[in-house]
Amino acid sequence: MYHANRASPAFVLAREEDIETVGEGIHRQILGYGPDLMICRVRFEKGAVGQVHAHPHSQSSYVESGRFLVTIDGEERELSAGDGFYVAPQLDHGSVCLEPGVLIDTFSPAREDFLPEGKSS
Amino acid sequence: MYHANRASPAFVLAREEDIETVGEGIHRQILGYGPDLMICRVRFEKGAVGQVHAHPHSQSSYVESGRFLVTIDGEERELSAGDGFYVAPQLDHGSVCLEPGVLIDTFSPAREDFLPEGKSS
Repeated sequence: MYHANRASPAFVLAREEDIETVGEGIHRQILGYGPDLMICRVRFEKGAVGQVHAHPHSQSSYVESGRFLVTIDGEERELSAGDGFYVAPQLDHGSVCLEPGVLIDTFSPAREDFLPEGKSS
Repeated sequence: MYHANRASPAFVLAREEDIETVGEGIHRQILGYGPDLMICRVRFEKGAVGQVHAHPHSQSSYVESGRFLVTIDGEERELSAGDGFYVAPQLDHGSVCLEPGVLIDTFSPAREDFLPEGKSS
């Protein structure tokens, strides 16, 4: 069963979930997932860089706060609170945090590589 | 091509996207999608009710602000800023807005039924 370690299979309370530092100035909290969908809150400090990378998952993200320079498939755009983006599977993408803020990153399927071993089984 | 009506296939600027009233006191803006993933910002007025319903899509949501009473498969929980939830396909779910706020709703696959005709082709 998915979410085997949680009291509830559905609800995710922020105060009960780990925040993981996943890069310099980048802090991620997983806030809901099933096999085919995952949502994460990622807090960026100013100047933090999400290096350009690609993965087989689709990604769609929302800028909750702050200001980010986002690159997708070689195209750059400055995004701020309320904006969003979509990254098709295998497209190169990355971001630079211009003003401290939060991205809500979602993936399909779920990023099994984000889960501690055993959490997904 | 997906996003045929957009200047960019990837970036979605909030100020350029329609906000649609989809229920009494419920206002939705689509902020990124591809065939297998969609992210929406949904603003709720106090007392607005997302009736209990089910769909074949997985859903994962994030509470950006406000306070919501969320029901999933008969289980109720009060959620506030920073919390999240996951709804497996075909599970009944709904919400009541206790304090005005915003949910970030994500779906896999994309909710074609949310798109104006022709936008997805």
